[in-house]
Amino acid sequence: MERFDGRSENELRHVKITRHYLKNPAGSVLIELGDTKVICSASIIQQVPKFLKGTGTGWLSAEYSLLPGSTQTRVARESVRGRISGRTQEIQRLIGRSLRSIMDLKALGEKNIIIDCDVIQADGGTRTAAITGAFIALVDAMESIYDPHCIFPVKDFLAATSVGVINKDDVILDLCYAEDSHAVVDMNVVMTGNGEFVEIQGTGEEHPFSRQQLNALLEKAENGINKLISYQKNILGNRLGWRIGREP
Amino acid sequence: MERFDGRSENELRHVKITRHYLKNPAGSVLIELGDTKVICSASIIQQVPKFLKGTGTGWLSAEYSLLPGSTQTRVARESVRGRISGRTQEIQRLIGRSLRSIMDLKALGEKNIIIDCDVIQADGGTRTAAITGAFIALVDAMESIYDPHCIFPVKDFLAATSVGVINKDDVILDLCYAEDSHAVVDMNVVMTGNGEFVEIQGTGEEHPFSRQQLNALLEKAENGINKLISYQKNILGNRLGWRIGREP
Amino acid sequence: MERFDGRSENELRHVKITRHYLKNPAGSVLIELGDTKVICSASIIQQVPKFLKGTGTGWLSAEYSLLPGSTQTRVARESVRGRISGRTQEIQRLIGRSLRSIMDLKALGEKNIIIDCDVIQADGGTRTAAITGAFIALVDAMESIYDPHCIFPVKDFLAATSVGVINKDDVILDLCYAEDSHAVVDMNVVMTGNGEFVEIQGTGEEHPFSRQQLNALLEKAENGINKLISYQKNILGNRLGWRIGREP
Amino acid sequence: MERFDGRSENELRHVKITRHYLKNPAGSVLIELGDTKVICSASIIQQVPKFLKGTGTGWLSAEYSLLPGSTQTRVARESVRGRISGRTQEIQRLIGRSLRSIMDLKALGEKNIIIDCDVIQADGGTRTAAITGAFIALVDAMESIYDPHCIFPVKDFLAATSVGVINKDDVILDLCYAEDSHAVVDMNVVMTGNGEFVEIQGTGEEHPFSRQQLNALLEKAENGINKLISYQKNILGNRLGWRIGREP
Amino acid sequence: MERFDGRSENELRHVKITRHYLKNPAGSVLIELGDTKVICSASIIQQVPKFLKGTGTGWLSAEYSLLPGSTQTRVARESVRGRISGRTQEIQRLIGRSLRSIMDLKALGEKNIIIDCDVIQADGGTRTAAITGAFIALVDAMESIYDPHCIFPVKDFLAATSVGVINKDDVILDLCYAEDSHAVVDMNVVMTGNGEFVEIQGTGEEHPFSRQQLNALLEKAENGINKLISYQKNILGNRLGWRIGREP
Amino acid sequence: MERFDGRSENELRHVKITRHYLKNPAGSVLIELGDTKVICSASIIQQVPKFLKGTGTGWLSAEYSLLPGSTQTRVARESVRGRISGRTQEIQRLIGRSLRSIMDLKALGEKNIIIDCDVIQADGGTRTAAITGAFIALVDAMESIYDPHCIFPVKDFLAATSVGVINKDDVILDLCYAEDSHAVVDMNVVMTGNGEFVEIQGTGEEHPFSRQQLNALLEKAENGINKLISYQKNILGNRLGWRIGREP
Repeated sequence: MERFDGRSENELRHVKITRHYLKNPAGSVLIELGDTKVICSASIIQQVPKFLKGTGTGWLSAEYSLLPGSTQTRVARESVRGRISGRTQEIQRLIGRSLRSIMDLKALGEKNIIIDCDVIQADGGTRTAAITGAFIALVDAMESIYDPHCIFPVKDFLAATSVGVINKDDVILDLCYAEDSHAVVDMNVVMTGNGEFVEIQGTGEEHPFSRQQLNALLEKAENGINKLISYQKNILGNRLGWRIGREP
Repeated sequence: MERFDGRSENELRHVKITRHYLKNPAGSVLIELGDTKVICSASIIQQVPKFLKGTGTGWLSAEYSLLPGSTQTRVARESVRGRISGRTQEIQRLIGRSLRSIMDLKALGEKNIIIDCDVIQADGGTRTAAITGAFIALVDAMESIYDPHCIFPVKDFLAATSVGVINKDDVILDLCYAEDSHAVVDMNVVMTGNGEFVEIQGTGEEHPFSRQQLNALLEKAENGINKLISYQKNILGNRLGWRIGREP
Repeated sequence: MERFDGRSENELRHVKITRHYLKNPAGSVLIELGDTKVICSASIIQQVPKFLKGTGTGWLSAEYSLLPGSTQTRVARESVRGRISGRTQEIQRLIGRSLRSIMDLKALGEKNIIIDCDVIQADGGTRTAAITGAFIALVDAMESIYDPHCIFPVKDFLAATSVGVINKDDVILDLCYAEDSHAVVDMNVVMTGNGEFVEIQGTGEEHPFSRQQLNALLEKAENGINKLISYQKNILGNRLGWRIGREP
Repeated sequence: MERFDGRSENELRHVKITRHYLKNPAGSVLIELGDTKVICSASIIQQVPKFLKGTGTGWLSAEYSLLPGSTQTRVARESVRGRISGRTQEIQRLIGRSLRSIMDLKALGEKNIIIDCDVIQADGGTRTAAITGAFIALVDAMESIYDPHCIFPVKDFLAATSVGVINKDDVILDLCYAEDSHAVVDMNVVMTGNGEFVEIQGTGEEHPFSRQQLNALLEKAENGINKLISYQKNILGNRLGWRIGREP
Repeated sequence: MERFDGRSENELRHVKITRHYLKNPAGSVLIELGDTKVICSASIIQQVPKFLKGTGTGWLSAEYSLLPGSTQTRVARESVRGRISGRTQEIQRLIGRSLRSIMDLKALGEKNIIIDCDVIQADGGTRTAAITGAFIALVDAMESIYDPHCIFPVKDFLAATSVGVINKDDVILDLCYAEDSHAVVDMNVVMTGNGEFVEIQGTGEEHPFSRQQLNALLEKAENGINKLISYQKNILGNRLGWRIGREP
Repeated sequence: MERFDGRSENELRHVKITRHYLKNPAGSVLIELGDTKVICSASIIQQVPKFLKGTGTGWLSAEYSLLPGSTQTRVARESVRGRISGRTQEIQRLIGRSLRSIMDLKALGEKNIIIDCDVIQADGGTRTAAITGAFIALVDAMESIYDPHCIFPVKDFLAATSVGVINKDDVILDLCYAEDSHAVVDMNVVMTGNGEFVEIQGTGEEHPFSRQQLNALLEKAENGINKLISYQKNILGNRLGWRIGREP
């Protein structure tokens, strides 16, 4: 099967994460995945949500937004429309849940981490790129307040990718926008460095899918995520990568 | 393993669908799944969304709401809070996508179907009960405007259930609220009468899950959904059930 | 005069109140008045509104909503429209005022009672049915926290009905929707078990009304409310009915 | 019984209506009722609401607002709170219904009249003063577009007042704020020049009221409204007053 | 050059400020500037904004609104549109900044002053009239709580006017609406009694302006403001005027 | 006088404009002014606002937003707060007016241009940087649809800068955030390539300013803007720069 941009079925687009992209947030990166570009930042807030006050436990939540000029046709600002769309809410809940799954919120203590994912340019896979990039911003933010006598609150690596079915039966990895808009099955997968699933969200609105197709999709996703986690380990380097998931 | 309410791991709660529950909508049911009770209605609107005007194609969307008194602690109305929560948006998008997947929207013609799922009492599994019940309301609504010379626009049966992991490693079917609030992995599955997946949404926020656990979860879900579809076929009866997925 | 449904001018529709309709709220009923069906629940909240903090006095307020499928043509959700309509606000203020009038809020103590009236099916008279049904839910909620050494905080019975003028000069009791939409004068009356008025809201937008007509309207209303209060006494039974308005 | 300001039980506060108060709207007045001051204006809009398009029939609706500085303690703007309160909605619906009751909307033709009632200073009775003043603004607006070959669309005079019970049993006319805040029964009455009721809204939240008290309240209201209508006739003068309710 | 209303280029419209216009706010005036009429009131609130709590310093903010009937064509209420327009926000920020510039907020102490400017009739220059009038309401409010042993918190006089360029090159003072809508350059100037600038906002959207034109504009503005401040001194009288800017 | 970052009073921060920064909008740049970074894009929409339909004339408006991580302390999204702040509204109105002043909207024809200014990093001067950068994005967008037989709709160059007074009497050019937060007078100036003013907005909330200070401020602003326009000419190059303000 030939893909729009010449990639093989198992091939990720070129990925590049630029650390310390902004000077103000505790952690921030620009992640580029082909033409998809997302600024991810992690801010540490001293005040936790009400339901956690006095529990000694921290929290993490995420916000996601498309810049108006990021999409093929200009997308209206949600501040102008006066409400946050269902799609945005779904995405930011996904990013939040995924990153919380590898955090030791007890070890974090009563702090609130806000992950901001602002899409500068959208070419498919923005939510999974956001998770993969935000992970690095989160590690940098945690490092910025790290006390070496305590547990480092990031328990494992985390990355995400999309897989899908096009042309009725071709299973491909990391769909760009042109592929995504023709896919009959669309699936986002989030996995840990340990090889376990944190999230699987698959939908066959255009065409239901069989158990066999599901297996093929998950295999390709696992493959892609392993490569992304290798890249993450590489750019974090030994010192920081070593700290993840280890006790003091 | 012993469950809160004495069920076995593979056992659904008692399910009951009352057809023609309201006199005004084209189709409406009360679905009871244990203590979970949802009124599902299907209204036919003559006006399709803008992006479909003039295409000859119809649409279906869903809305979901909890009655304030449906939950253990009273839940504030979204009309009072002035905005629809992320959870509600996620659920109504899921219900809409799931039901669209078995609709022939071309055969429907330029009509808009609104599915309303109002939870009277919530005891876990409200979104999957809503899908299972709304399917019947949808078939009744389609029957109410059916022209025997045309294609019946419902292509296949559709039902949904939840599965999860509790106590680290016990995989169970159809979680009630008490189980759901202790689950470490939570998964909603929507399948067609043909045995294919329409939606898989699994999240291991509390605990990532392995490929092996995933397989166990999907197996239990498939089993439960088969029983629900048998029940649907039964209450629709031969005349209506026969029509689904057949050409005139 | 012949009425749409064969009733006489002085006849109420069939009324039925099902107590303990939901398992979570402190009190809840389903009231059916002909085809009008309303779920009324009373929830007890420990926190009173700001203006009552520290006064030792409680509060009661009401919320009212139509299910989208309850009306002849589907009515849009107020959460979707983003604001609560004037009609809804008027009705929930009326329900709240009416029920507060028979409460001893001092005896209640610093608690807030929220009355939720959700209309499952609307066929005229939803606001008066809501008051009549909510009264029973309120009594059950008060019973659930009753301390026999204290004053029972419900001071008197309370019920409501509608009356109206159709065909220029026919005065009728308990209008169904078909009658209501042709009425030239429309009046809602709320009365206590003691035979006194709590609310009179009459409007002759289509046709002003004379003092004589007013008297005829009030007489029919009084008659209907007496029957509703008898029914309430009957379903509450001696033990609970006896407690209302008596000191310990 | 002695009243706060020395009036007798049957006495209205001093009333003064200044016509043509603003230069832009078709009709506008300042009505002063004691210290209560309301600017009422009537604007003619060429576009009727959707449900009347093409019917040849017009419409009238009202809006009501308190200036922040009008009340004893500054009241927050509804534009700042982002929503219109239930009280405001109730009042503007009352004003609209009342004025529509004396309009021949067919004779008006496909025009929309918006009545704006802006309270400059509030000392009780703002809604009834608004109705009494807006009637004059409405007549002036109708005169401004009057075609002598057609029916003048105002069918009758209209005025409103408040009555109430204080000190358990004293029935008084035209309550100022100090009286209103102590009243146990509060009633607003709107009547036509013909002596018929358009609206009766009585509430005994603090204390239910008997049939006998109701009669005393209505008598006082009738008395007061007659005086207000005499004043209206006086300031409109013979030429305009004569036109009301007469055919060409 | 001839102006619409016969004024010379340097001539202000007739100005009149009525003090103590409303009985409830601490200070209130009606300012009339030709046909432009604005009610300005100053209310003293005991609670300062969060960022000032515990600092001993006070605050002042302003709100501005057009009555629907104030403009040539009826303007919709911002409470109905559900949001405050950019124009309104700009104006109320300008009024707030301007009045804060002559306040000694430390001397005021932890109090919040809200300035309400409600335009009864709009004929150009509403924002500058609001500033000029609100200054008097503010002085009266400060006088109402004045302790003679403390610093009077108003440090200087303050007034504002508009200037503009019409017909490409004619510079005029105090534009009425008819002039304003034809102006190619539009400038609002706020100055103190001391002859210094607090705000200059000039815009040449229709036509950029030269340095020379700017000088001519500022000269005319200074002239007009001097006259307005003379009028303010006159109506405040010696006792109050003397107090402004002096220590105890 | 010594400045925070060693610049002289007359010195701009380093400026860099990267053209064609995003692939989707018709024109887009990244402007960097010291640490202030703004993405400016110009999108061409075929539909003009209602008031221009059928006039043959186009329109331009601007939107402005801060990324949450752009500021020293994370700033909440306006989509989350549910409303656009007064500051944002003021800024986007300023950007829109400024760019419209150098557009020939008649020559543009019935098209709507939306300028999006998204601040990636904020270190003072974001609104003036946005104007200076958006001008280039606008020229590129106009070039992308240019028909050489028509008038090029950009009439002149346009740039903006800020000036201010610190330490009571030091007048400086191009304030960074640290300077801006200590300034007693703050002024934004927008000028054309022709050396004329489009906007002057000066505010002395902390300290009124004299005519002499105003002259010093304007002189420094003129100087800085001349340098910015030279830079703009340089990066646009002869071919495009030559086209601005010339007829075909």
